Amino acid sequence: MSDNVQLLGISNAIVDVLSHVDGNFLETIGAEPGSMTLIDLDRAHDIYNKMGPATEMSGGSVANTVAGFANLGGETAYIGKVRDDQLGRIFNHDMKSLGVDIRLPKAADGAPTARSHVLITADGQRTMQTYLGACTELGLVDITEDTIGAPRAILIEGYVWDIAEGPALAKKAADIAHAAGARVALSLSDSFCVERHKDSFVSFVENDTDIIVADEDEVYALLDTPGIEETIELLQQRDTLFAITRSEKGSVIVRGDEHVIQSATHVDNVVDTTGAGDAYAAGFLYGWANDLPLSHCAQYGTHCATRVIQQLGARIEPGLLDGFEAL
Amino acid sequence: MSDNVQLLGISNAIVDVLSHVDGNFLETIGAEPGSMTLIDLDRAHDIYNKMGPATEMSGGSVANTVAGFANLGGETAYIGKVRDDQLGRIFNHDMKSLGVDIRLPKAADGAPTARSHVLITADGQRTMQTYLGACTELGLVDITEDTIGAPRAILIEGYVWDIAEGPALAKKAADIAHAAGARVALSLSDSFCVERHKDSFVSFVENDTDIIVADEDEVYALLDTPGIEETIELLQQRDTLFAITRSEKGSVIVRGDEHVIQSATHVDNVVDTTGAGDAYAAGFLYGWANDLPLSHCAQYGTHCATRVIQQLGARIEPGLLDGFEAL
Repeated sequence: MSDNVQLLGISNAIVDVLSHVDGNFLETIGAEPGSMTLIDLDRAHDIYNKMGPATEMSGGSVANTVAGFANLGGETAYIGKVRDDQLGRIFNHDMKSLGVDIRLPKAADGAPTARSHVLITADGQRTMQTYLGACTELGLVDITEDTIGAPRAILIEGYVWDIAEGPALAKKAADIAHAAGARVALSLSDSFCVERHKDSFVSFVENDTDIIVADEDEVYALLDTPGIEETIELLQQRDTLFAITRSEKGSVIVRGDEHVIQSATHVDNVVDTTGAGDAYAAGFLYGWANDLPLSHCAQYGTHCATRVIQQLGARIEPGLLDGFEAL
Repeated sequence: MSDNVQLLGISNAIVDVLSHVDGNFLETIGAEPGSMTLIDLDRAHDIYNKMGPATEMSGGSVANTVAGFANLGGETAYIGKVRDDQLGRIFNHDMKSLGVDIRLPKAADGAPTARSHVLITADGQRTMQTYLGACTELGLVDITEDTIGAPRAILIEGYVWDIAEGPALAKKAADIAHAAGARVALSLSDSFCVERHKDSFVSFVENDTDIIVADEDEVYALLDTPGIEETIELLQQRDTLFAITRSEKGSVIVRGDEHVIQSATHVDNVVDTTGAGDAYAAGFLYGWANDLPLSHCAQYGTHCATRVIQQLGARIEPGLLDGFEAL
């Protein structure tokens, strides 16, 4: 029982609404710089009405990773819920056009497709105000042996825990995946998300997860470690593969007593940090799925992250591997 | 009878769907590089299904000009037809958030909001495949003394002639505008558009228009002139103000026996030429509406066009005047 899919993502299917703002705007709407806040439809309308002109692009953390993985030439599939509206059709188009196999039909009714207002300040930092809409209707019923199949790995995002059946469907997906011989990877999403669901995350990481992709703050929040040295030491006593990004400090990969320290590539002109972690995960997992040494996986991840922060939005333009032949 | 509006635009209200493609893709779909082709909904779906991932941004030629004019700090209003769907709400939001006064309600039914598939090749050239949708329902009934008001100028685009009541509504708008003491400006849109509607354009330019904004090919198509020298000579015998863009050769402004030759600003890295002419028109008309000398109007136009070709999409980021204090 196996298919050709290397990576199947399960996540919130979101269209990003990107706009440049100044710091005052974040204060006006009461948003913590750099945070991701869940909002309801009324607040979504209110923020949108106050925002300047925007650009719309498909987004969503693990959806970005799946798109990046497909961009690199990998075989991918995706489970996420959109409504059959214009934004939902845009989201599905942007995945399908990269060859991603969409496993769920669009919802004929219910809440509209999710959108995240991505507010970008002059320093390239993004603050997200996210209306989950149709995503909240993703449920246990959508996670089956048919929709999961037998990929090399599944990748679930922490944000899935924010939807009602999220923890249960993540567990069900992990069980089905493991039974099919797949590995289970988890993206921790953000440190606030880790804090919101900490007990459930700790249990899922210990019992159901083979690979973690996360930034250092998320890992510290999960493990209660004070810094990277203590984290490496702790993780060396475990089997789980951790890929930990550290912004300009690079990244660290740990798998048992093996670990890799990867430096970041200096970027003069950071346009927008949206999707840096997602892109790193795409490159890293692509290397992993192709059985490359961990040091090469780290270089793939770094290359993808370096590219995405020099453009607007989290979906890397096709041609991701250009200039990467040196590897 | 007057209001504070300096520029009121009347045009096709379009959301751009921007995607990078290679030359083969244009051949596959049978599109002439650099052209704008009108397509029906079936072909729109077909092209979209074949396209790679895209970015959505509000567009439309004169709508871009109005947005740019508002970005510069001018008072603006807009007449164009969108459906009350997600793309229509995006279009209206992006105008309103710049302070543009939207004069028509969204259509509750009928064809969906227009979209233009903007296919960008590596040299920055764009080829447009446009589904007009809701735009085709703009009609005489929408052009009234109430919706026009008494602006300093109205700006109509040639593409309006592509919709059924277009020529009649342009004439009606010009008459109402002139009766209200406004000037009538026309953007010629593209040379194919000029060829499609040549007799009507010639008559409208001679009888109803005070200002023309256009690129040189459009002007040559309109006037049957072989080059810029002959065109300047011919236009010196007329009263109409012509602002003629010439890509890397700069621009030429002619008003009676006065004329200005403006050089282009060299740009090393052209990202996307979408909206260069629209941006030039925004800067030029902003200068004109503020009673600046024609040479300054040309510099404003050049600055705006130079900015927009260094970014993706036709709507210039807020902060358009940054670096332009030297004027």
